[in-house]
Amino acid sequence: MSDQQAVFIDRQPLLEVVPLGGLGEFGLNMMAVSWEDTTISIDAGSMFPEPELLGVDLIIPDFTYLQQRAAKHRAIILTHGHEDHVGAVPHVLRSFDGPIYGSPLTLAMLESKLAEHGIDAADRLVAVHPRDKIAIGQLTVEFLRVTHSTPDCFALAIHTPVGVIIHTGDFKVDQTPLDGEHFDFHRFAELGAQGVLALFSDSTNIERPGFTGSETDVVEAFEEIFASTRGKLVVTSFATSVYRLQILVNLAAQFNRKVAFVGRGMVETSQVAQRLGYLKIPAGLAIRDSEIKNHPPGSVVCLVTGSQGEPMSALSRIAIDDHRHVALTPDDVVVFSSREIPGNERSIDRVVNHIARRGAEIIHEGIKHVHVSGHGSEEELKLLLSLVRPRCFVPVHGAFRQRSRHARVGERLTRNLASKVDIIIAENGDVLHFDRSGGWVADKVPAGRVLIDGPESGLGDQVLRDRRHLAEDGLVVPVLAINKQTGAVEGVPDLITRGLAVEQGADSPLRDASRLILELLETASVEERTDYGMMKDKISVELRRFFRKRLGQRPLVLPVIMEI
Amino acid sequence: MSDQQAVFIDRQPLLEVVPLGGLGEFGLNMMAVSWEDTTISIDAGSMFPEPELLGVDLIIPDFTYLQQRAAKHRAIILTHGHEDHVGAVPHVLRSFDGPIYGSPLTLAMLESKLAEHGIDAADRLVAVHPRDKIAIGQLTVEFLRVTHSTPDCFALAIHTPVGVIIHTGDFKVDQTPLDGEHFDFHRFAELGAQGVLALFSDSTNIERPGFTGSETDVVEAFEEIFASTRGKLVVTSFATSVYRLQILVNLAAQFNRKVAFVGRGMVETSQVAQRLGYLKIPAGLAIRDSEIKNHPPGSVVCLVTGSQGEPMSALSRIAIDDHRHVALTPDDVVVFSSREIPGNERSIDRVVNHIARRGAEIIHEGIKHVHVSGHGSEEELKLLLSLVRPRCFVPVHGAFRQRSRHARVGERLTRNLASKVDIIIAENGDVLHFDRSGGWVADKVPAGRVLIDGPESGLGDQVLRDRRHLAEDGLVVPVLAINKQTGAVEGVPDLITRGLAVEQGADSPLRDASRLILELLETASVEERTDYGMMKDKISVELRRFFRKRLGQRPLVLPVIMEI
Repeated sequence: MSDQQAVFIDRQPLLEVVPLGGLGEFGLNMMAVSWEDTTISIDAGSMFPEPELLGVDLIIPDFTYLQQRAAKHRAIILTHGHEDHVGAVPHVLRSFDGPIYGSPLTLAMLESKLAEHGIDAADRLVAVHPRDKIAIGQLTVEFLRVTHSTPDCFALAIHTPVGVIIHTGDFKVDQTPLDGEHFDFHRFAELGAQGVLALFSDSTNIERPGFTGSETDVVEAFEEIFASTRGKLVVTSFATSVYRLQILVNLAAQFNRKVAFVGRGMVETSQVAQRLGYLKIPAGLAIRDSEIKNHPPGSVVCLVTGSQGEPMSALSRIAIDDHRHVALTPDDVVVFSSREIPGNERSIDRVVNHIARRGAEIIHEGIKHVHVSGHGSEEELKLLLSLVRPRCFVPVHGAFRQRSRHARVGERLTRNLASKVDIIIAENGDVLHFDRSGGWVADKVPAGRVLIDGPESGLGDQVLRDRRHLAEDGLVVPVLAINKQTGAVEGVPDLITRGLAVEQGADSPLRDASRLILELLETASVEERTDYGMMKDKISVELRRFFRKRLGQRPLVLPVIMEI
Repeated sequence: MSDQQAVFIDRQPLLEVVPLGGLGEFGLNMMAVSWEDTTISIDAGSMFPEPELLGVDLIIPDFTYLQQRAAKHRAIILTHGHEDHVGAVPHVLRSFDGPIYGSPLTLAMLESKLAEHGIDAADRLVAVHPRDKIAIGQLTVEFLRVTHSTPDCFALAIHTPVGVIIHTGDFKVDQTPLDGEHFDFHRFAELGAQGVLALFSDSTNIERPGFTGSETDVVEAFEEIFASTRGKLVVTSFATSVYRLQILVNLAAQFNRKVAFVGRGMVETSQVAQRLGYLKIPAGLAIRDSEIKNHPPGSVVCLVTGSQGEPMSALSRIAIDDHRHVALTPDDVVVFSSREIPGNERSIDRVVNHIARRGAEIIHEGIKHVHVSGHGSEEELKLLLSLVRPRCFVPVHGAFRQRSRHARVGERLTRNLASKVDIIIAENGDVLHFDRSGGWVADKVPAGRVLIDGPESGLGDQVLRDRRHLAEDGLVVPVLAINKQTGAVEGVPDLITRGLAVEQGADSPLRDASRLILELLETASVEERTDYGMMKDKISVELRRFFRKRLGQRPLVLPVIMEI
């Protein structure tokens, strides 16, 4: 159904499901479900660009398919509040009317995100609770509690005229959830017993054998760390890992340490989660980062942003001894309570080396069990498939390798069932049709990625651009020669440009751009200057700002640094 | 000692040790040891360049320090035959006279490497065996058996007039070595009891708790895989992991499968190792890759190169169904019996996704225990330190984070010993002086990295260049726009150049270069064209060859591919 018409076969309407993102990558999760004149979207996630895409801040799914049926689009349903599920909402919500459903925490996380974009959509946000059912046209969306790394997450059971489809969202089976909100096994089992038309299930961790384990599994390792650390304890994790924050707050109270949230993400998430009652902080325990110096190091734990080695994050600043309020000493311990997202290994390695030079001890999940994944491993994914026993099984969330493995595992599990399970390895843009008897790939619609050049200097400064646009915007390659020994720049930075309308000669803006780079390097510390990841990032940000303000252009900036 | 003079304090000579590589990175391992008019080198390793250094094939240590004392340089001592310990030998051996000592396998691996460079140094290679002692001036080098991922590895005990220093080389404690060649605990203990002046010990796996485990630990998982695989079994590992090859050969014999070595590295290593008796292959078991098609898939195991996702390797070819003799089917199983070297994650991920599209099952160390490291974990490193109880301890092999952690672990272990252990976190180029009472950092000499632009088309075509030279060679940035849906190039590739003396206009070589890229893309399969890693690599190689042949220039080539 690539046009505005509803789908019929022999006069019988069909259910149409179109994954628009998340099948081919981690992130960008978005799926459209349509029945006659009703279309709903499940999630609208973003992802961070690969390092090649310098000049791009964010990627969102191409939702042209939905824009073409905007008149029928009735609602956005959110499974939970992580970036890869809600990050594109600010970019898609203006295209559609209608409510946005999600749990209270999901909506609160979304609201902070919308506020960053200067969007007030409070009147469209509708909070829902486990087992709530919302009727939207002839579709009824039922919210099922699942456990994940953040509280208040849902799977969805969508009751349609041809049967029930279940979308798991992100989940693992946490048998001891910190907030006592258990996985709703019973409802999954009940729906499975009654008959489910299709299951769309998270494939993220299908390559991990066994069970993932509970969020509370990290407590033991952290107890050891709290007990043995003489100086400051600095813990970095994803700011949205609210359970992790709660565990660390609890241990801080137990071990008589004050808690400081450091870095914007940490401060915001902790405030939102506390306001809504998802994060409970005993009175007097939390301090501001500016107060850290007023307490003995052994009485403080800092929860900081920057677990992925992001060059501008609090932890990167701390690592190069350039943070206003946090300085590391050899008595301190820095814990990476996080995984390395593929692609970030080298940035993280740089930060760890800087921290080691400060003399602090470093602990990560390879050393102690200080992190646990939020996604179910093979046994949990099999358990869910066994409970639901769907007519059709569609692995979602992941590259082809994960989805095809999930399909293989599903095939082994279901091959001896009385009723056959059809397994569909779908791609983004595949149009899946379902009738009462099953489902199939019927068509293909455009799907892909839209690159976003984010706001560097305020609100509402977003530009959506596709890659063709990017090419038209021109290219700037600043080439710098840095002396490895001294960290000094040799000669004047050279700026190679292409597709930029820019004067040459003595008054050329390129001279100013070159001077800007020199200034940037002169004001940087030696440690920063020899951290090429950080320098490239800084040069990119500053040059893009320069070209935007001076020329009204938005070139791709691709710094090349040569050591000499 | 930065000049040609021997070192004296109050007329007493001092021992001088200078690490020239491997302290600041993984790879480039090289260390100089001098006593009066005798200098020896321990290892001369290379490393592969970071992805930023496009246009560079190999990095070797800057050995200016050794060239300055070439007249005193008496010998190169090799601990084992891995690239990070012998890869620079072809580049350094012409600078010095004198023998190169190593185990028979190490020397055989070196000889193949030298042959690639058209170097015949057979008359300089001297095979040594465990507990052999070689006198070189007033230094006596003793070879101690250690276990690692390849057979016939040594640690070194160097007897000097001021005491014994021990260099571990790479090691783990494999209690059940496949070849029965056990770790020489007794000699380490004996030397420790007699008194050791300094220990230089491998820090690679200091961030892993516990023991690493034996090479034979993978047998169980592979037995399961051999037993359950209906189609071809394709196993990729480092070609130099001779124990791994032997285990797979043994299992092939047990499970009635023929063994095909696929890819140059596998073919060469297996031949060398077999010739010297390190790899035992029952008669009739091995087949050529061209014979694979003559056997039922269930009767074949292929041992292939490409575990790091190298774009031109056998496995990458197989993954995109472009290998002459090996085609994957859904009954086949591909095993990555290797770790992901940091920086290679994305290349490997691409290859895995391609393999998944062939329908084959994929198994890696995250799924089953099909790989074990060759480097000792924390407990093994502590065990060695306890056995040796040196006067000074110098962690080697690794970035600052590993060496500083090794130092910290060493400090905790030795703080209660009767005699204090001095721990020195040295850097490449630090000049360490030792007398009978201990050691200290006395000076700093130039040390760093030399980039090598390798031969693309034959022997003896190597150019050593430093980064300054690289900048002088100019820069070419080919910018391509590829249509994501069709894989077709849009428009003509644009070539941005800097620092290249090249004509513009209709006859410009840049037009030919642009045409070359178009041809390259046209002859590539759709799957190749959408694999940007592979395309960038191909374009780099071809353009470098073009500029070298046509203009005699060697620019840095930095392809930018935009999806539109």
